[in-house]
Amino acid sequence: MVFFTPGPSQLYPTVPGHLETAWRSGVLSISHRSDTFKEIYATSERNLRMLLNIPESHRILFLSSATEAMERIILNCVKHASFHLINGAFSQRFFNIAEQLNKKATSHISVFGAGFIANEVTVPVEAELICATHNETSTGVAIPLAEIYALRRKSPGALLVVDVVSSVPYIELDYSRLDAAFFSVQKGFGLPAGLGVLIANDHCFVKAEQVKNNGVSIGSYHSLPELADRARKNQTPETPNILGIYLLGKVCADMLVKGIDHIRAETERKADRIYAGINVISGLAPFIGDPNYRSRTVIVAETDRNSEEIIAKLAAAGIIVSAGYGKYRERQIRIANFPAHSVEAVKKLINCLDPN
Amino acid sequence: MVFFTPGPSQLYPTVPGHLETAWRSGVLSISHRSDTFKEIYATSERNLRMLLNIPESHRILFLSSATEAMERIILNCVKHASFHLINGAFSQRFFNIAEQLNKKATSHISVFGAGFIANEVTVPVEAELICATHNETSTGVAIPLAEIYALRRKSPGALLVVDVVSSVPYIELDYSRLDAAFFSVQKGFGLPAGLGVLIANDHCFVKAEQVKNNGVSIGSYHSLPELADRARKNQTPETPNILGIYLLGKVCADMLVKGIDHIRAETERKADRIYAGINVISGLAPFIGDPNYRSRTVIVAETDRNSEEIIAKLAAAGIIVSAGYGKYRERQIRIANFPAHSVEAVKKLINCLDPN
Repeated sequence: MVFFTPGPSQLYPTVPGHLETAWRSGVLSISHRSDTFKEIYATSERNLRMLLNIPESHRILFLSSATEAMERIILNCVKHASFHLINGAFSQRFFNIAEQLNKKATSHISVFGAGFIANEVTVPVEAELICATHNETSTGVAIPLAEIYALRRKSPGALLVVDVVSSVPYIELDYSRLDAAFFSVQKGFGLPAGLGVLIANDHCFVKAEQVKNNGVSIGSYHSLPELADRARKNQTPETPNILGIYLLGKVCADMLVKGIDHIRAETERKADRIYAGINVISGLAPFIGDPNYRSRTVIVAETDRNSEEIIAKLAAAGIIVSAGYGKYRERQIRIANFPAHSVEAVKKLINCLDPN
Repeated sequence: MVFFTPGPSQLYPTVPGHLETAWRSGVLSISHRSDTFKEIYATSERNLRMLLNIPESHRILFLSSATEAMERIILNCVKHASFHLINGAFSQRFFNIAEQLNKKATSHISVFGAGFIANEVTVPVEAELICATHNETSTGVAIPLAEIYALRRKSPGALLVVDVVSSVPYIELDYSRLDAAFFSVQKGFGLPAGLGVLIANDHCFVKAEQVKNNGVSIGSYHSLPELADRARKNQTPETPNILGIYLLGKVCADMLVKGIDHIRAETERKADRIYAGINVISGLAPFIGDPNYRSRTVIVAETDRNSEEIIAKLAAAGIIVSAGYGKYRERQIRIANFPAHSVEAVKKLINCLDPN
């Protein structure tokens, strides 16, 4: 079986070996306050920082999911008002979370399958946080980063947080042009689900203190200040997903050996192959019209038949892809293109997609 | 190595086998919206319900940690005021969390190493939630359940939540006498850390709706109503720790085969052995004076030497125990007695503790 699902997805090939090492060496039993754990934490933090080229201006914090990251960033960086670029299910969820946390959430809405250009977006003056989703896993739209960064330039009073859930480690971020970013590990890192990563600069921490000093709760054990206090000691406030942190460090090390440039170039070549296949195979067509907005990591194809038929045919060949999201379920398929997906597996996928 | 640490702790012996089955069968790659996941969820829920004899009046919800359970229960079941029985670090944390969430938290404080009796406790009339810690992992005090249940009888207007983090599956709860209970899986279940379980009855859900209708935020993706909505479909709001949920279901099944009565009786016998050892071995003494308040699952001994010396000696023999908590670090050791700890390992522990 090869899982081309957009997350959880195919395991990075080295994961089973690391899993076995983990339980054999006691990683699953050690105390989260032990020196052994602190070393695991420090290694994971260091390897991830190196792989994604995260500068010292930004801290790395471990949470349980990307959804949790949305909640924590809203709680800590918004006293009153947030602003959301909505163009799919996950950016919509970010907006909903802000409303549930009693913030005044406003939005710029693009239709499902579209992106935005910064010039068309008006960020309200009162917005304290701009929330953008780089790669909409539900639609296969990737917003050019320049459009996202431009929003921050236009609104110097607001912080910018970018959901990079399904685009790391492929995407290369310019951290000087964003305040926070977050992802979960079961997509591009090819790891078991249950770990989220939040990357945040000092502006976010200063803002959290301001919100708190205004008498607004910023949450408890996972407030930014508590996370940072523990992170300085290579720990987390609660007993975390130790296995997840361990595996992230190991897989980052493996990716560093392979080379991030190599991984990114390979991702490009595989994406080119998949889009080329979708373009020529009868009964399939790329959902996203504008090539500049087509995701390289979550590729969505329209189908002329019920998608179930195609999904079943692929499954019979040991290949798992996803249906379209929500109401597009029957009319689209979604194909992930992550580092765990080998060129050979991509070739096999395209062969199986082609009915001829 | 045998980990007698009070959590994370020794893996239940079947865990490595289940881990291998998990990755080989694709459990680490399946979608959290797939039928396969729903079956895993349903199995885990059913097995846990059977093992702990949880009635249908109480729902089972999956979170990331017991610490998260504290936050979620406060957010959802307290509009204004909570009341806390504090007798150690973890009951203190529960109190702190309520304060951080801007609730009016009041408490009855017992000294470190003591418990309470219900007759001595006055629950304020305004308290909406009584928070009790059954087994204080920091001190080795277990409060007799009758004392905890009595608090609810005395305060019929308040809900009762019991932290059973380090006492399940050993302890047998009477769910008709409590509204909610929670634990994490890296203690008595012998599983890798990263999963919390919240058990809550309808009173908790009704209360959450009341709090929300009063305009107070009950959180977002992990509010009780959202958790329950998804739980009805055997799902979670976010991509959860799928491996954790899978392993919990498997280990509960294994414990059901062994028999919960057998596990509980064995826990009693092992606890008797450990306390007997501590009583006779020179240089050690039980920290908790009153045998009625001595935990059967987290056993704390005072040491006449620096605890580091004893810990190092045991480690050389492949046995890991914990130091005392906080300022008791150098003067105490803590020994877990969970289902994963075999009678043979306990005998070896006692032999190694005895300097003669």
